[in-house]
Formats: sequence, C-alpha cells, structure tokens
Amino acid sequence: MAQHIKGIGASAGIAIAKAFVMETPVFDIPTHKIEDSAAEKERFQAAIVKSKGELEIIRENTLKELGADKAEIFSAHLLILEDPEIVSQVNAKIDDEKTNAAQALDEVSQMMVMIFESMDNEYMRERAADVRDVTKRTMAHLLGITFVTPAQINEEVIIIAEDLTPSDTAQLNRKYAKGFATNIGGRTSHSAIMSRSLEIPAVVGTKVVLTEVKHGDFLILDGTEGDVIVNPSSEQIAEYEEKRSAYIAQKEEWKKLKNEKTVTADGHHVELAANIGTPNDVKGVLENGAEAVGLYRTEFLYMDAETFPTEDEQFTAYKTVLESMGDKKVVIRTLDIGGDKELSYLDLPHEMNPFLGYRAIRLCLDQTDLFRTQLRALLRASAYGKLAVMFPMIATLEEFRAAKALLLEEKANLQAEGVTVSEDVEVGMMVEIPSTAVMAKQFAKEVDFFSVGTNDLIQYTMAADRMNEKVSYLYQPFNPAILNLLNNVITEAHKAGKWVGMCGEMAGEELALPILLGLGLDEFSMSASSVLRARSLMTRLNKAECEAIVEQVLDMDTAEDVVNFLSTTFDIKK
Amino acid sequence: MAQHIKGIGASAGIAIAKAFVMETPVFDIPTHKIEDSAAEKERFQAAIVKSKGELEIIRENTLKELGADKAEIFSAHLLILEDPEIVSQVNAKIDDEKTNAAQALDEVSQMMVMIFESMDNEYMRERAADVRDVTKRTMAHLLGITFVTPAQINEEVIIIAEDLTPSDTAQLNRKYAKGFATNIGGRTSHSAIMSRSLEIPAVVGTKVVLTEVKHGDFLILDGTEGDVIVNPSSEQIAEYEEKRSAYIAQKEEWKKLKNEKTVTADGHHVELAANIGTPNDVKGVLENGAEAVGLYRTEFLYMDAETFPTEDEQFTAYKTVLESMGDKKVVIRTLDIGGDKELSYLDLPHEMNPFLGYRAIRLCLDQTDLFRTQLRALLRASAYGKLAVMFPMIATLEEFRAAKALLLEEKANLQAEGVTVSEDVEVGMMVEIPSTAVMAKQFAKEVDFFSVGTNDLIQYTMAADRMNEKVSYLYQPFNPAILNLLNNVITEAHKAGKWVGMCGEMAGEELALPILLGLGLDEFSMSASSVLRARSLMTRLNKAECEAIVEQVLDMDTAEDVVNFLSTTFDIKK
Repeated sequence: MAQHIKGIGASAGIAIAKAFVMETPVFDIPTHKIEDSAAEKERFQAAIVKSKGELEIIRENTLKELGADKAEIFSAHLLILEDPEIVSQVNAKIDDEKTNAAQALDEVSQMMVMIFESMDNEYMRERAADVRDVTKRTMAHLLGITFVTPAQINEEVIIIAEDLTPSDTAQLNRKYAKGFATNIGGRTSHSAIMSRSLEIPAVVGTKVVLTEVKHGDFLILDGTEGDVIVNPSSEQIAEYEEKRSAYIAQKEEWKKLKNEKTVTADGHHVELAANIGTPNDVKGVLENGAEAVGLYRTEFLYMDAETFPTEDEQFTAYKTVLESMGDKKVVIRTLDIGGDKELSYLDLPHEMNPFLGYRAIRLCLDQTDLFRTQLRALLRASAYGKLAVMFPMIATLEEFRAAKALLLEEKANLQAEGVTVSEDVEVGMMVEIPSTAVMAKQFAKEVDFFSVGTNDLIQYTMAADRMNEKVSYLYQPFNPAILNLLNNVITEAHKAGKWVGMCGEMAGEELALPILLGLGLDEFSMSASSVLRARSLMTRLNKAECEAIVEQVLDMDTAEDVVNFLSTTFDIKK
Repeated sequence: MAQHIKGIGASAGIAIAKAFVMETPVFDIPTHKIEDSAAEKERFQAAIVKSKGELEIIRENTLKELGADKAEIFSAHLLILEDPEIVSQVNAKIDDEKTNAAQALDEVSQMMVMIFESMDNEYMRERAADVRDVTKRTMAHLLGITFVTPAQINEEVIIIAEDLTPSDTAQLNRKYAKGFATNIGGRTSHSAIMSRSLEIPAVVGTKVVLTEVKHGDFLILDGTEGDVIVNPSSEQIAEYEEKRSAYIAQKEEWKKLKNEKTVTADGHHVELAANIGTPNDVKGVLENGAEAVGLYRTEFLYMDAETFPTEDEQFTAYKTVLESMGDKKVVIRTLDIGGDKELSYLDLPHEMNPFLGYRAIRLCLDQTDLFRTQLRALLRASAYGKLAVMFPMIATLEEFRAAKALLLEEKANLQAEGVTVSEDVEVGMMVEIPSTAVMAKQFAKEVDFFSVGTNDLIQYTMAADRMNEKVSYLYQPFNPAILNLLNNVITEAHKAGKWVGMCGEMAGEELALPILLGLGLDEFSMSASSVLRARSLMTRLNKAECEAIVEQVLDMDTAEDVVNFLSTTFDIKK
C-alpha cells in the first residue's frame, strides 16, 4: 500500500521518479600510530589537493548555473583548505604525536567546529557547517572511501537525504534530479532556498523520509503541498501525472505574460515587482517580467563581506542594479542589520529580545558614519537609473526626519564635490512597526511612499515571534487587525497622494491578492519566481468586486473567518 | 562648591542630612591549615547559630513592619543556613583537608553562587544574592569582624551604598534613615521597591555616589527628581527645606481625600484603583483609599512557591483579597508567566525573543490543567466578594473565547459539585497586544470589560523592548500612535456599553491623567501610594476641557509635541 509522508512544501511542482537515497558516509577513523611522518604528511597533502580540485570544479559550475553569490560558498570552502592554521595543526599532530592523518584531521576539525559553534554570532556558527562539509570531502580521500554525491546521478531520480549540504545542492543536475525530500529544514533553510532558485520541486522537514524510504522505491513528490507518496498506486501515478502536466502547462501559459503589464479584468493597472538580495538576482527579475525591484535588501552586501563594504563597493553594486533595470524603478532599502541578522565584524550588544532591539534604522541613526557611507553610495548611483530609497524599522516621525536629513546633507555634500545626483530620488519608509501603521496619516505628509513589510508588521501586531514554533499559530496575515492596519495605511497614503507597496511574503500569497487589490495596494513586490503566476491571477480579478469584499472582511472576527470567506469566494486554496 | 550627582528617582520625597557611607566589608580570608578539626567545626557551628539568631530578629521585625511576603526573604536565608548540603560540605573540608572554617565556607559558598548564577532561570539566579548575603553575615562572625549595618544607625542620616541587600533594607529604621542613594539599581530593583514600601526618599543607579560622597558629607537628596547634592550652599538648603515642607504638607492634604470619591471639577466620577501582588498589599490599598483593586497579579503566588500552588492555596489567597475588599471590585488577572517571569518548577523552552513568545494565556490554553486549577480557585472565591476575572496577552478572539469557555466549563463543574459560585463575575481581558487595540470593536461585543496594559502595549506598538537601554527612548506613552489606539479601545468599548480600565504605569502618571480622562477612561489602576495624589489632581481637572485637548493631541506628530503641549497647558512637569 502506498505510504504518505507529510513535510513542508519548499519548492512548487511535482516529481514522479525512483528514490535515490543519499546517506552520509560513516567514517571509521583509524587510531594507529604511524612511523613515517613525512609520508603521512604527503598523504594528507594529496587528499587536500584532490579536494581542492573537486571544489574548484564545483565552484565553476555553480558560478555558471547559479551566479556569483552562490559560488562564494565554495570560495569559502577553498579558503578553509588553505587555512595554514588547520594544515599546520594536522601536520604537527602527525610529526609530534605520530597520529595518523585521518585521526589528526578529525581531531583538528572537531575542535574548529566546536569553537565556531560556541560563538555568539549566527554567521560564525554557520561556518561550522562549512568546516564539516570540507572535512568530509578530505576525509573520504584519506580513507579511500567514495561516497555518493549528486554529481554521480545519471538517471531521473528524487533525492532522499537527511539534509543537503551547500556542495550537494550545487551539484544537483536538473536533468536527473527531478526533486528532493529531506528529514530536516524549513521553508527558509539553505536547501529550500536553493531548490526554489533551481526550480526543483522539494519537500523538507519530513522528519522521517530518510528512514521510511528505501533506495529504489517509487515516489511521487508534490512540492506545492509538501507531500511524498511512497510506492503509489497506478491511479495515484496517473492522477499526479495529470497534475504535473497541468502545472507545466500553467507555467508555459504564465510565461506568455512576461512582457505584459499587469491589468485586472476591469482594466485597473497594478505594479508587480520583485525582491532581490544581490545584483545577480536582477537576471531572474527581468526573466520573470517584473515591472520593478520593490525591495533590494542591501544587508547581503554587508553580510557576505569580511569588513564594512566601502562606498565604492556599494556604489558599484547599486549602479549595476539600477543600470540593469533601465527605466524601471528600483527601491533600495538601507541597511537592516541587527535582530537575527548579525555582522561578524560589528560588535552588537547581546539582547534579551533582539526582534525588539537595536537594529536597522535605530543602529544607523546611532552609528551615522556607517549610514552616511551607504547614503553617499546610493546617491552617487542614483544618476544611473530610477532610484527610490527606503528606511527600515521606522517607529517615529523623528526617526524618519533624522534619516531623511542625513540623506539631504550627503546630497548637498556630493553636489558641492561636483558629483551628479539625481533630483528625482523618492524617499520612503517601511511600514513594519504598528505605530507607523496607526500613524499613517501623519507619516504620509512627509514620505514619498510606504512599503509594508508584512513579516514584521504581523509579528509585532500579534506580539508573536514567527520563528518560535510555540506561537507561530499567531502569525496570521489574514487577521482582521492586520487588514484594518493595511486599510489605514493605504487610505491615508492615497489621501496624501502617495503610493503604497508591499514587500513582505504576503504580497506574493495567492489568497491575499484579491484583498490587497481591493484595499488599493499600488505595488506588489515578491520573489521573482512568483511574478508571472500573480500576473495571471490578477488578469482574472475584478477590482470593484475586491473592494466590496474588503468592506466585508474588515469587520470579521478572526483570521479563520476571513480565510474561509476568501477561499469560498475565490475558489483559491489557502 | 556643591556637587550635583544625578541618578534615578526611586522613591519620592526630599531628605536633608549627613551622609552615612556603608561600605561592604572586605574579608581577608586566612589560608592556614588547622589541627583541631573538632574545635574548628564548633567555631563554624557557633557562627551559624549567631547568624541565625540575628536573622530571626530581622525576620520578626520585617514581618511586623512590612508584612509576610517581605519577611519570606529571611525565611529563605534561614533555610540556607540550615541546608545540610552547605554545612556538611564545609565540615568535610575542615575534616578531610584541614582547611580553616572561613576558607572552607568561602569555597563552598563561591561554588554555590557559581552554580546558581549559571542557571538558566531568573529566579534561581537571584538565589545567588541570598547565598552571598548569608555568607557575609556568617563570615563576619567567623573572622570576628563587625561591619556596619543599618540597624546600628542612631542619628538622622542619608545612607550611601553600592546597593542595599534585602537584609539591609529590612533593617532600615525610618526614624533615622531619612533617605538613601546607591550606585546601582533601577526603578524596579529590589532596593527601589522597598524604598517605596517604606516611603523613604531614594535615588538609585547614580553609578558614582559611593566614590564621590565621603562619610559625614552634608547632603540633599531629592527622590522625586533623582538628584543628590553634596555639601550644598545655605541657599540650596533653604530652597530644599521649603520643597520638603511643601511635599509633606501636600501629602497631608492628600490624606484628607482618603474616603472621598474621585470626582472631576465638572462633576464627573472616575474610579481610582490599585494594583496588588499579594494579599498583604490590600492593607495599603485600603489605607490609601483606592476604590477597587484594578489588577491582582496572581503570578507572585506561583513565583514565591516551590511547586504549583494547589487549588485550595489559591482559593485562600483570592478569598482573603475579596473579603478584605468587601463590596469593592477586585480584578484578578489569570497567570501571566513566561517572558521575563519564570517558575523554577516549570520547564519553559528557551526562546530567542521571550517577549514575543510562549507566555500568559498562550501557555494557559496549552497547559489547561494548570489553568483549570486557577479558574476553579477563582470561581470558588467569587462567592466572597465582587470578582472580575481578566485574561492576559490575548491576541485573537479565538483565544478569548477559548479561555472564557474553560471558565464556564469549570463553573458548571463546580455547580454540579454543589459549590456556590457568584453569578456576577465579570469576564474581561487585557489590551496589551496591538491586534486587540485595533480590533476593539470586535472584542467589545464579547468581553465585559477591557484593562489596558500600557507597558506591553507600548513595547509592542513601538517594537522596542523597554528593558533594553539601547532602544528605551522608544518607550513613549505619549506617542500619538498609542493615544490613537487608546482612543479606539475606549470609543468602541463605550459604544458596546463596556467599561475600560488601565493598569499599566501610565495610569498613575500625572501628565497622562488629563489625556486619559479626556479619552473617557473609566478606571485608573496604579500603585496604592499614587492614589491620593491622583485623586487630588482629578478634582482639579475639567473633563470637558480634557476632551477638547484629546481632539488636538490625536493629530499631533510626535510624543515630544504631545508632552510639550500638555506640560504647557496643565503646568505639569513630565
């Protein structure tokens, strides 16, 4: 009988294929002492050289397939192998203690993993995974063990694993890897993000798929719903083959909308924009026909670096995005660091409640040198496209005024230096703190635009950390409290002649589109891969109808009431 | 020249007297080995007996002066001295290692302090301070050192110290200790709370008072403003003597209002209530003429215990409060645990953002056994007075409905068991999460009353942890966003015929009273010691005028604008 395993849908689409179970190799580390230290050190060196050779190939492939930012993972891995600290410690153990190379490497890497894991910094802790990944590769060469890697797959399969490491996902060949399912991970884990970039259907966090599925089992994987069906019946296979065809046909249909404007059934135009993290992401934005960049998260520029990016480095990144987007608007958000986003080179205080702490604009207004550098880079880049700047985590009008004053000061400075700066830079802010949603009337007088960050707005309005499983049921985008706040923001902005965008996850949620359209949202910014689907849906919506529906939902009691009503009215599944 | 030291005003009033500098004794712990173990153990035992004798006297005095809950501190200290773990470990060191008693005690207590401090539980960490306090006393006896304690003071002084321990504050004699100033602490530190209970003017958190002030220096201490003036001029002394007389006269004036209703200048009645933590606090409520208990925080019943209080223990506490208050209303809040409030016997998950986590009603609706026990105790007590029950941290209507359903279920159960339950128990909720303030219209249909918890409401609305110094500037009770939310809550409640109270710190803030009156707040609940002052102020306010002022402030831009406007209009200092 078919077995049904439930997980988290990480990347949409359906795969039907044999299971390829990828188990982590178990290394049996020898403990014997060696006699010839020189020979053993040579053996170790050879294993390193082989590992580096492999990693260089993986890096090249990643660069071609997925872009520079993803390839950087493997530059980091190469750096670990070149770290004289590691190599010399292993060699010292071989020389002084006559330890064999495998054991010496095991001891040194375990110590490094422990040191990284004990660090009070998310970024450094993640480096522990890199050390493990690199050690595994080198250890395999030392022990003469070949373990299965995705690169070796040469038939159509669905990969089953505990989790996929960065090097695993980089080696996935879309021709053969039709999907994957893992025991651990969530929608935002590394492997989930990669699966969406690669457009490979994926289910993560199943907890049991690795123990329940055997190599060669026949599988159906539904990455939209988060389902894995083991050894399905022929009826199930037929049913899912049909679903898969429909999904593929729909994607083809969507592609036709690439160069279209987004117009509702009753002729109303809205703007569909995309969120990006690095200049490399612009390619996907253009391919998916987004009409603008609604959110460029500049923190990646800082998080991927060893030290603060210089004004010129930032200028180059911003200019690249603006030039690539041509006459399309690019909304760049100033540094949103702190909270769960840390920089290895910036010492932030340890906080009891980081989500309610010293972050984003609070930090930038306190450390103005840092902020001025970014503002200058933005202003210099403004000459190369259509720039809008927005400030994150604004809570009070004083903060918005202070941030804008610094921007104007740096503009005047640049102009005095003879640098060309656009005169048409819009200056707006995120609405993600309840106080600003409540005070939209006052803020609307002073901003050029709002962009609603629903993730944080929901979190603060419901007083529930959405990362905390115990209270994640309170993360309710459809709670009438949220909808009423959105209504206030959009109504007051429009009264003052300002536009409102949304760049949180809600903007890309199918069930939310009718409500947001009815509320009058002007710009919907989402992941690039969601744009065409959203455009397709928009063409079928009637704005006047949606407005009537909004009137009803604003007075409803609970999120459940709203979701049930919407699902029935629009026949869309939540 | 006079020197001015700034701190945090912890307890209002003015003191003018000589400084009594109370330095922590420095113990020079001997390291010699002893020969006669039996004699050394006897010496240790004698020191313990002396310490216990002193502590029993302090406990008796505290019980008489400050009530049972404060006296419990010293019961805890006595328990430490009776702990066989400590005594036997010290004796073992004397026997086995021939360590002298002082050194042995030092080693054992340092280890205990370290263990307590490393615990992941606020309550247990605080026990480290108790161990230190007890060790200090016993060590002094062992070493034959007498150190200065507040009990020895026999002239009028202002005490200067790094901090005051629980036993220090318990020994303060109001006749001689006219005030105190400390280097460390904040408005909610132990010593600050005690100073308000004792009505001794106090300034805490000065950072420097212990180094800047010398024994015998003449001082002015202003506990209202947080000022310490060292060696003031005769003009300054005269000025502050006048202020002190005015303050004392004012307090006498306020006392006359004890048995009056609270009526504004234009004849409108509002209710002034008090917040309490234990049944002992009712005495202060009645002495200060509060018209109700607006908030009984039941968590102290849980926090002061070693295990969950039984239904009977809770019933007794609730019944005591209800009976003592007679026909005056008592609003009892169900368990608000989690966040920064932990129970030693309840294993709560470690959370990244505890203020946005699993706490209060979220926990009670998850662990319903716990909750049902409290609800039964409340319902049984309802027969003995005028009970209103309220639920903390409600975010959605589903939560309120679920909590109320459990209450009704237990009521039916009790009635089936033949227990008398009042039919007039009001069932309300805290408004402290922005979603409920926004959705007041929907909630007002189902609750009997709201009580606004401004501390949390401000914290979540501004997305700023008020305990976090880096962002505490965003804790803005007068931010127009907060005032607009309050306006919505009160307006919608009144439309539905429901009353609204407030039990956060804002309800007792002088500058807030005109606004809250103008907004139509029905019940103001504050610390008992603020009631008479608030009543005095209310008699001078005109409700119609305040309503006109509210219209203006709701449209203002910033908290600063509001505060400036109010200060000018009412001539009240923030």
